[in-house]
Amino acid sequence: MKKRYRNGEIWDFEHEIGELGNREVILGLDGGTTSTVCICMPIFPFSDPFPDPLPVLARAVAGCSNHNSVGETAARETLEQVMADALLKSGSNRSAVRAVCLSVSGVNHSTDELRVLNWLREIFPTHVKLYVQNDAVAALSSGTMGKLHGCVLIAGTGTIAFGFTEDGRQARAAGAGPVLGDWGSGYGIAAQALTAIVRAYDGRGPVTILSSNILQTLGLSSPDELIGWTYADPSWARIAALVPVVVSCAEAGDRVAHEILQDSVEELALSVKAVVQRLGLCGEDGKASFPLVMVGGVLEANKRWDIGKEVVNHISKSYPGVLPIHPKSEQHC
Amino acid sequence: MKKRYRNGEIWDFEHEIGELGNREVILGLDGGTTSTVCICMPIFPFSDPFPDPLPVLARAVAGCSNHNSVGETAARETLEQVMADALLKSGSNRSAVRAVCLSVSGVNHSTDELRVLNWLREIFPTHVKLYVQNDAVAALSSGTMGKLHGCVLIAGTGTIAFGFTEDGRQARAAGAGPVLGDWGSGYGIAAQALTAIVRAYDGRGPVTILSSNILQTLGLSSPDELIGWTYADPSWARIAALVPVVVSCAEAGDRVAHEILQDSVEELALSVKAVVQRLGLCGEDGKASFPLVMVGGVLEANKRWDIGKEVVNHISKSYPGVLPIHPKSEQHC
Repeated sequence: MKKRYRNGEIWDFEHEIGELGNREVILGLDGGTTSTVCICMPIFPFSDPFPDPLPVLARAVAGCSNHNSVGETAARETLEQVMADALLKSGSNRSAVRAVCLSVSGVNHSTDELRVLNWLREIFPTHVKLYVQNDAVAALSSGTMGKLHGCVLIAGTGTIAFGFTEDGRQARAAGAGPVLGDWGSGYGIAAQALTAIVRAYDGRGPVTILSSNILQTLGLSSPDELIGWTYADPSWARIAALVPVVVSCAEAGDRVAHEILQDSVEELALSVKAVVQRLGLCGEDGKASFPLVMVGGVLEANKRWDIGKEVVNHISKSYPGVLPIHPKSEQHC
Repeated sequence: MKKRYRNGEIWDFEHEIGELGNREVILGLDGGTTSTVCICMPIFPFSDPFPDPLPVLARAVAGCSNHNSVGETAARETLEQVMADALLKSGSNRSAVRAVCLSVSGVNHSTDELRVLNWLREIFPTHVKLYVQNDAVAALSSGTMGKLHGCVLIAGTGTIAFGFTEDGRQARAAGAGPVLGDWGSGYGIAAQALTAIVRAYDGRGPVTILSSNILQTLGLSSPDELIGWTYADPSWARIAALVPVVVSCAEAGDRVAHEILQDSVEELALSVKAVVQRLGLCGEDGKASFPLVMVGGVLEANKRWDIGKEVVNHISKSYPGVLPIHPKSEQHC
């Protein structure tokens, strides 16, 4: 096994682990644009239903592992660090690992998958089974207890709709990041809110309470200062963290904030509808039922302005068979 | 004078320059998000009209100097390098410099101005006069031969509208970069075109010839590959370089490309109108004439789809006194 760049020392703990370290384990990772979670579990017989609670030995959390957001080096280091942390916490070392299942945002193309597989191959011995997928796959499984059928909508910092048919076909929509029009995402909502502040300030748009509320949240005294704040750090998650302020402004009756959320609902519903239509999940008459797993901070219930509920309402006008599932899962703990 | 970080050696040429190097000169810089130009001129008596051609001793060109796009370190190095190049070419050294006039994009706030002044202060002796402005100020002057009155619209990689009244009031609109909604800019046009490709591909938008034309330009075989291409390099200018493809698609009758350009026209016209209205450049009856200096690649005449002409048409519906000026200037050589 190769020692790698400056992070070689993250595996030093392995020398300290004795016999216990040889209990066979698997690692499961959910890598998002805001945070990355790794769990370490013993190998146990596949059963239906799964044991509840799942026999999780350890859980570790790190930051963004989307290489499109933070770059390859940072994404790779985050993945390696979170796996090392989970193994350390569970008292295991890498020789105990039988499989690594990694679902990570930013894996959009076979070249992305191959690159991540190569990173993992440098960390683990050749007999370890490796699985790399877009994080939408883990999100769907989290709602269907492992069955890959139906559609999943993720709306956190980023957004993607991903669907699978029972015969293995798959389709996706959005998931292309902020430059390529993921307007329904948390980043999209917040960027539109920041834009609305600039437009109100320079006379191109209506007055909005987003201005005072967001500036106060950021500790800025004038919209002039927003430009410097915005470009000081390219992290997408930092922008998306403003979503709760936009929601609270909409709940307080602000028209501009309301329209931004309404746009987001339409964009998110459009992504799901595109996937459902391409895969025919709705059946020939458009009325067949299909699961829609809904994951991510943007879709979680708010006080009055409930984006997730509005998205389902919107979709059900076209596809009345939509069955929304809010998974009880790791990422919602 | 302090020797600075790794670029100290860029001034080594000064040891080689003899007596000639003491002729008094001024440096003028126009720093944009795509390129930065520095000219070196002798001091000559202020006259009206200016001598034509201007007695330029040397001209040097470098890349982006907008710190919001490439970061502070790169922006600072670009500015220092382009000034050193201009002095070297003119056979001058820093002790010959009497003033530096720097107009650079990304200077939006007094803190930006102060930071750039501090960079210059580390490079030049204390008796050198320093002037730092947003690049819109240089752009306006280039059309009005130095008089700061009227409005300037820049639309290159970025966009900004900037206006001045004869009594010294000023106002701006847009110029807040891609995250904060500069949709009329070259970056904005190209990002919307890339978004349209993704939307067509995943079933969220209409088919467009932008897909084949842009993929061919980038040497990509599938829209899947656009995500990787987009985030591989954060440069705004690299995205904006696709504007001519969008224009040619619109000229070929593509509806999606046409709508993107139409949106750009409306956004650019809105920026100018916001500035004109706030400053009252149009007089009390809205019909007074005022100069509108138009600068940047997006506003240059195209074959049939002429964005600059459409912007002026749009503005003249509200303000019939608009007098468009396409400056004969350094940046259009």
